Amino acid sequence: MPYVTVKMLEGRNDEQKKALVEKVTEAVVETTGASKDKVAVFIEEMSKSDYAVGGKRLSDE
Amino acid sequence: MPYVTVKMLEGRNDEQKKALVEKVTEAVVETTGASKDKVAVFIEEMSKSDYAVGGKRLSDE
Amino acid sequence: MPYVTVKMLEGRNDEQKKALVEKVTEAVVETTGASKDKVAVFIEEMSKSDYAVGGKRLSDE
Amino acid sequence: MPYVTVKMLEGRNDEQKKALVEKVTEAVVETTGASKDKVAVFIEEMSKSDYAVGGKRLSDE
Amino acid sequence: MPYVTVKMLEGRNDEQKKALVEKVTEAVVETTGASKDKVAVFIEEMSKSDYAVGGKRLSDE
Amino acid sequence: MPYVTVKMLEGRNDEQKKALVEKVTEAVVETTGASKDKVAVFIEEMSKSDYAVGGKRLSDE
Repeated sequence: MPYVTVKMLEGRNDEQKKALVEKVTEAVVETTGASKDKVAVFIEEMSKSDYAVGGKRLSDE
Repeated sequence: MPYVTVKMLEGRNDEQKKALVEKVTEAVVETTGASKDKVAVFIEEMSKSDYAVGGKRLSDE
Repeated sequence: MPYVTVKMLEGRNDEQKKALVEKVTEAVVETTGASKDKVAVFIEEMSKSDYAVGGKRLSDE
Repeated sequence: MPYVTVKMLEGRNDEQKKALVEKVTEAVVETTGASKDKVAVFIEEMSKSDYAVGGKRLSDE
Repeated sequence: MPYVTVKMLEGRNDEQKKALVEKVTEAVVETTGASKDKVAVFIEEMSKSDYAVGGKRLSDE
Repeated sequence: MPYVTVKMLEGRNDEQKKALVEKVTEAVVETTGASKDKVAVFIEEMSKSDYAVGGKRLSDE
């Protein structure tokens, strides 16, 4: 606690994901006062065929 | 905003998923007054081995 | 199954929410072939102080 | 209803997942009074590269 | 880890919720081999006006 | 896209929540390359009576 979920399109590489969880965790610790070891981060990746904005999937653009 | 998540068993084909996001987006726009380009839809597919009703997974039926 | 979650800002009235679940359910049935009584819809309302785009909460605009 | 989601690291085998949904469903029925056939359970598995505690992914340890 | 979310209609009393998290946690520990102190449970309560099955909200029945 | 959800105990004040969404958004932009105006952040607050670790709710400790 806190629990952070980042939902984004697939395609980021491993270094980006490693940096993402580090920086997001720091941001949460700094602003909420939670202790670092209590912060969990989950990455959820979406495919372009499972995500639409304005009624159109990214895979159909 | 609004953000719509549709969680369902895997197996729908690409045309069904394309139609799903179109029709669901229209339904949301029509009833909430949100502008179409602000509506996001996420499809999440489940495997039969990860979904149970009444304590029994669909893969065990 | 399917399970649909609509996350949106609070403020829609009861008639809008009633229409929303009806129309979204019809859209899902029509496009996925699911039987109507199997479709569940959840509405989740957000406060403007708990939702941000571009790093700014709607309550701070 | 109730709807139960169990999010955990991938790696449990099929027997464990089968037992998990059975036992969790029983626990929910026993304590909430819901009828068994109304309880749905979803299993969501995470990869070690998409899950971090304390700013560090399990795949980086 | 594991993280368990139980989504249900509001109305259970405090004793039921206390028992629910205890029993569900035991079920998860017993079947997944996770250590008890690693299991987190979240209860999310829904209003009858925000939940529909078959296109009809429970508050409209 | 990306969509970030921060789930935490209720009790942070408005300034903390404002800073949280700012800093988390910056962290996501910096590490994923997403444009800032595409990042959405949702805050979800939990009550101590709806959250348990190790089978015990925080409200029962």
